[in-house]
Amino acid sequence: MTSIPYRRLNPPERTLFGPDLSNASPRARQGLIACLEGANDPDFLQVFELARTLLRNLWHTENDDTFIFAGTEEAGMEAVLVNLLEPDDTAVVGVAGYSGERLADAAERTGAQVIRVTAEWGTILTPRALEPVLAEHRPRLMVLVHGEASTGVLQPLSEIAELAHRHGALCVVDVSSTTALVEVQVDTWGLDGCWTGSQKGLSAYPGLALVTFSPRAARRVEERQTPVRSWYFDLAGLRSYASDERRHQTVPAPLIYALTEMLELAYEQSMAYREGRHRNRRDALVAALEVLGLEILASPKTRLPSVTVVRVPEGIDGERVRHGLLRPFRIDIGGGLGRWKGRVWRVGIQSHSAQPSYLVQFVSVFEYLLAQQGYPIPRPGAAVQAVIAALEP
Amino acid sequence: MTSIPYRRLNPPERTLFGPDLSNASPRARQGLIACLEGANDPDFLQVFELARTLLRNLWHTENDDTFIFAGTEEAGMEAVLVNLLEPDDTAVVGVAGYSGERLADAAERTGAQVIRVTAEWGTILTPRALEPVLAEHRPRLMVLVHGEASTGVLQPLSEIAELAHRHGALCVVDVSSTTALVEVQVDTWGLDGCWTGSQKGLSAYPGLALVTFSPRAARRVEERQTPVRSWYFDLAGLRSYASDERRHQTVPAPLIYALTEMLELAYEQSMAYREGRHRNRRDALVAALEVLGLEILASPKTRLPSVTVVRVPEGIDGERVRHGLLRPFRIDIGGGLGRWKGRVWRVGIQSHSAQPSYLVQFVSVFEYLLAQQGYPIPRPGAAVQAVIAALEP
Repeated sequence: MTSIPYRRLNPPERTLFGPDLSNASPRARQGLIACLEGANDPDFLQVFELARTLLRNLWHTENDDTFIFAGTEEAGMEAVLVNLLEPDDTAVVGVAGYSGERLADAAERTGAQVIRVTAEWGTILTPRALEPVLAEHRPRLMVLVHGEASTGVLQPLSEIAELAHRHGALCVVDVSSTTALVEVQVDTWGLDGCWTGSQKGLSAYPGLALVTFSPRAARRVEERQTPVRSWYFDLAGLRSYASDERRHQTVPAPLIYALTEMLELAYEQSMAYREGRHRNRRDALVAALEVLGLEILASPKTRLPSVTVVRVPEGIDGERVRHGLLRPFRIDIGGGLGRWKGRVWRVGIQSHSAQPSYLVQFVSVFEYLLAQQGYPIPRPGAAVQAVIAALEP
Repeated sequence: MTSIPYRRLNPPERTLFGPDLSNASPRARQGLIACLEGANDPDFLQVFELARTLLRNLWHTENDDTFIFAGTEEAGMEAVLVNLLEPDDTAVVGVAGYSGERLADAAERTGAQVIRVTAEWGTILTPRALEPVLAEHRPRLMVLVHGEASTGVLQPLSEIAELAHRHGALCVVDVSSTTALVEVQVDTWGLDGCWTGSQKGLSAYPGLALVTFSPRAARRVEERQTPVRSWYFDLAGLRSYASDERRHQTVPAPLIYALTEMLELAYEQSMAYREGRHRNRRDALVAALEVLGLEILASPKTRLPSVTVVRVPEGIDGERVRHGLLRPFRIDIGGGLGRWKGRVWRVGIQSHSAQPSYLVQFVSVFEYLLAQQGYPIPRPGAAVQAVIAALEP
């Protein structure tokens, strides 16, 4: 037996301003520590069904096949793809950023043929670009990202879903950077599969995948010629998990309690309020960044409310700024991914992280760290004043 | 927008005496609420590396490829199988209970040919039964369950792993009902892959998969002819998750903090202490069940310390007893699975659930509920006395 040194940590509070997770709400914490229960516990059953109802309501869907299970949003992605694709299928994947690339990679793992339709990073995918590809290949699946967290772009969806259906394809969408932050209208838009995690727009704790399958998608699973290639993500398994049988996977009850609290909060607040609040926080941040003379990568019309992507100016070491924010201030923002590595900052202001005091501290320290590297601050102190002035109560 | 009724719950405390999860330790709860952090947070990195070191120590392995990620123990199972099997491979799966059946099903999902070697439920798989099959098929993988939670049987492993290697196979094992309860000697026994969850023997919270791959297994992954069929479980992804890159999956930091506390506790206590304690609790329970005239299904020599499987006597409705325990006492035990559905009770006394007071309450209520259905109690009150007398401090 080796001797393992352990030094008790005393972690300070964080400001989670990255695209991957937001600060957990104190109300989520209340849920987290409420109880640990087994799969057939009558209290748990009640909470689990409530959570599924609230999730359907949030996504505006009647889908029976709406599930919450142990895993991250990436597990939700895999659950949708692995059930809907077979090796002989074709999938068209829209790629205009890192999340799109990841989707294409994951779709290929199913054995299906993947056709990428690419758009310049920072832009949207247009129906005009997609239509000829859908017409030519008549794929099983059209796969898209609603909020591209690597570029800060919000992708319009309704027209594309209709297009997909017209060409015989199902349309499935990563809504992990939009759920509970901007409207996601599953039934009206005609989305056949969606997924998110518990920790971004919902400000619960990471560790749960939230997914929904339309009746059209469920029919497609029934018509498969080959078994679903995964035990963990199999739709029949997820259904048994949400039934009285409940033999599929161990139930992570504390995470589900925490999530349920936040789904309730979202229901109480309404999406109109939440979307307005996030647009205001984003606009306040953008106002400050523009005072600093920085460039936002997405055009004003397609900017995601949840994640703002900013170009690192010439001569500035972007990673040094990130580390300066992290230590000693424990302000956590995202860096660039893939081809944008080191070239952008990604600031995510989501749900419980959308607090005015957090914005003030971020902008203040950020300006200081830029100045430290010799970046010319046009009007010192004006950026934080711009944030304060722009913030609505 | 529909109106969703919500009634605030006030869940009472539970006694988790099932095979799937144990009561979370208060120390795990301290970890759970310590902090929510991002993937590159310096505090988190330190904790994550400590957790991996402690897990290696617990499993007695030097394997670099030892990971903790979001999902349940079933996700750990899939991670091992999907990386090590290709469609043209053959796997031999030992089946002597429900967990074995599940393993065979999951192995088939990879596309590999699966050969089941079966033994009667309640018995072990012998090297004598396995050898001719290994010799004939020379499979890629030998797959086994260490602690079969459906039958309460502990499977001896070391000889079988050696046998598998002699016939050119890797040996991978489900250790979810044994980890931190009885010794698991990965390197000495020559196991090439193992998995468990965070919530049984370790008494942290459900939602994490713990896995390890031997260098032999890692070489096998490198030599694959086809890509790993899963994005979420891909070994390269799990490696990046444990590296500075950390782009694979969102980190469920609170669950990992909670688990780390429990891994530390296991390290402080030593396996000799833990195994002795669980054998004592199991023996105390068995003593009470024998006073009640009930039959334990596994033979004394192969009895799992963590889960005791008891035959439901003729004329007794086993599910009614389970519901009587659950309400109002909130004592949660397991029922039979698969062909043993309704025919057995499964009592799991694991880690933080191994408290003397819990045993006393379980035996008392259990005797009462049996008597209520007309079961003849040989000496009323003697069972609980037997438990109390047998419990070591």
